[in-house]
Amino acid sequence: MYKNEVYLKNYFLSHRLVTRDLISYINEGSYSYRPTETSMTAAELVEHMLTTAYQFAAMAAEKDPAPLHEEREQLSLEAMAERYTSETVRLIETMDTEHLEKEIDLSSTLGVKAPAWKVVEMMIDHEINHKGNLFVYIRELGHTELPMFVKA
Amino acid sequence: MYKNEVYLKNYFLSHRLVTRDLISYINEGSYSYRPTETSMTAAELVEHMLTTAYQFAAMAAEKDPAPLHEEREQLSLEAMAERYTSETVRLIETMDTEHLEKEIDLSSTLGVKAPAWKVVEMMIDHEINHKGNLFVYIRELGHTELPMFVKA
Repeated sequence: MYKNEVYLKNYFLSHRLVTRDLISYINEGSYSYRPTETSMTAAELVEHMLTTAYQFAAMAAEKDPAPLHEEREQLSLEAMAERYTSETVRLIETMDTEHLEKEIDLSSTLGVKAPAWKVVEMMIDHEINHKGNLFVYIRELGHTELPMFVKA
Repeated sequence: MYKNEVYLKNYFLSHRLVTRDLISYINEGSYSYRPTETSMTAAELVEHMLTTAYQFAAMAAEKDPAPLHEEREQLSLEAMAERYTSETVRLIETMDTEHLEKEIDLSSTLGVKAPAWKVVEMMIDHEINHKGNLFVYIRELGHTELPMFVKA
């Protein structure tokens, strides 16, 4: 059951690349689509996925997560996905096997302590969960030919 | 990064118990709800999650997955969840550390070979993905106080 930073990077990308495929279905006219009044909009959901994964990866790597975009910045979801994905991958790549076993203190944010590899896996679970939400949004936006939930 | 069958059982349950919470929101009148014409109904989605996880666990454990219910059987989703969850957990518990490292041949179904632990993790990813779908269904059915996507 050996996992290293290369395994975790590829595991992350096997889901993030599907997220990117789904983002490509959302045109600007659909950014404000929300299934119910209490739901996040499509744009809010995607931004939440991208920024949370990046913050989790930074916490795992014990790096300071510099903001990658400003609220007033006009950025397409696709451009945002490209920027956050490359920085998230870069953070995963900084962790060697020894660091991956290091206990990370998330008491102040998530109320738990966990080894860095588990923090990365929690980040991927968060991505899969919200990608599962996004699949329903995309189908509701009229798309019926959808990708598998994970890339081989 | 040591993981054994106890870790995997608890990891599975940290998501399955949320699935069960969501199922409790679906009354019989909502079993046939589907967000779009091409979507699975709520009942079909839940049955797909329960049976697929059980089949994945059986493949990982190299056990023959006996059918746990018949199509004509009238079974509530909650009863179905209870039956499948306990059998899926039982299958995970059969795998010792040596078995978890054993390569499982899924060429005929998924086109891959993977160690048993990875088959279990693929099963959990499948659960998280469709639970993400289910969260949107439940919100669309009028529920706004929803649980976290994973139980601590």
